[in-house]
Parts: sequence; structure tokens; C-alpha cells
Amino acid sequence: MDYDSNNIFARILRGELPCVELYEDEGTYAFMDIMPRADGHHLVIPKTAARNILDASRDQLTACMHTVQKLSRAAVRAFNADGVTLQQFSEAAGGQEVFHLHFHILPRRDGVELRPPGIMADTAVLREQATRIVDALN
Amino acid sequence: MDYDSNNIFARILRGELPCVELYEDEGTYAFMDIMPRADGHHLVIPKTAARNILDASRDQLTACMHTVQKLSRAAVRAFNADGVTLQQFSEAAGGQEVFHLHFHILPRRDGVELRPPGIMADTAVLREQATRIVDALN
Repeated sequence: MDYDSNNIFARILRGELPCVELYEDEGTYAFMDIMPRADGHHLVIPKTAARNILDASRDQLTACMHTVQKLSRAAVRAFNADGVTLQQFSEAAGGQEVFHLHFHILPRRDGVELRPPGIMADTAVLREQATRIVDALN
Repeated sequence: MDYDSNNIFARILRGELPCVELYEDEGTYAFMDIMPRADGHHLVIPKTAARNILDASRDQLTACMHTVQKLSRAAVRAFNADGVTLQQFSEAAGGQEVFHLHFHILPRRDGVELRPPGIMADTAVLREQATRIVDALN
């Protein structure tokens, strides 16, 4: 399947759409999920085009996983979490909704179920949570 | 948290417990999940000790992701799948049940939900599915 350069994450990367930013390095970018299924739910993406895990380059996957680990550790500290759930969806049948490779990082607490999908968060809440993750990164 | 070298994946790696093997390279090992949530559901693990994403080395993560991609592509071909769901659970709160780092690869078909967790598969079925994935790798 082809990469559509007008997907919303490509537009976020180009600064055409807003997001609540967390982290950036040479190869990757991270920001808060606007429909979080847990407090601190965020996304890691490569800065370059990849539709999903089926077409990504080895360098894109390597870079993403290093950022995923860095942010997972920070999110655990930030939310005093008991664990982390990592999800990556490839193609609609796999659960993908935005067709730019992304990894979901969900900080988890014992006994707390994931929230249902599709519920938009308040931006002020996302900003406060992002500040906690960024502080834990530093 | 410490790594317990008697977890069942460590015992599989040492040949102390059986599994339906799929793939092996210098750093990683892959085998069928015995409680599959989709046809072709399998696992990729590092050969060396790591509890989960929170303590894994960068090399372990890199090696695992390359094998995850190779097997995801093979599984899509083997099952004529429409997509892939990738899951990785860290600590019990994150959904982890075996405390050796592992990635779940679930081939997905349009309109087919994941099966409920915890249902043991017939070994003959797993062996037939494994043959299809191994054939698609080659």
C-alpha cells in the first residue's frame, strides 16, 4: 500500500496541524494521543514516511524502538505506573486508523482497565500530562 | 524488577520445554503462541535475558524489531492477512504474564475479531500454521 503524505501525522510533522509535543530527536517524534485510553497515552513516530511495520525501514524501526523505550521509562516515572502496554497497528484490519507508522505507549496501573477508544481528551489535561512526561525525561 | 531465569520462555530457550518453533537467528527466537488470539499468532523474543521493554538493551530491542518485521511480513503472506496487530506487555499491569521480553504478532483479517485470551490451541494446528509461516519466510 502506498504512503499518503496528507495523513494527519505527516501534517503534524510539517507543522500544519497542532499536537501536544513530548520529544523529538533526529529520527523520531512523540506526542500525546488525543483520544487517550490511559493517562499518559502517547505516540512515537518516525519523522520520515512509512505506512506501518510492513514497509518501514530497519533504521526507522530501530529509531522508533529506542524512543519508545526512553518514553516508556519516563512515563512510568511520570505516572508512577505499574507497567506499560505497547501497541502497533498495521493496516485497518490490524487496528490502524492513521497511515503513518506509530507506536502507542500506554502507562498502566494495577487494576485500572483501558478506557474505551474514541473519547477525545481535554487539551489542558494532555498538556499537564505531557509536562510530567517531559520532566521525567530530563 | 529482577529477571527470573526459570520463566517459561527461558526454559524454552534452554530446550527444557517444548514449543512450535518458527525462526531463530543470532539474537532472537520465534515460536507459536499456545493460546492464539488469531490464526498465526506468534511470539518473538531475545535469546538473552530481559524482563520487558523497561530493562531491555538497545541491541535486544533492535534485534527483536527486525525479526518482528520479517515475521510480520511472512505471516501476512502465509495467511493472506489484511493487517497485523503488534502487542508488547511490560509488567502485570501492562498485560505481561511471562516475564521474558516478548512481542506478540497477530495476523489480522478484515472483519475478524481477536479470539478471547486463554484458549489453548491444538498442537497439530499450530504446527500446520507454523509450516505456512516458515514456508513464507523462505
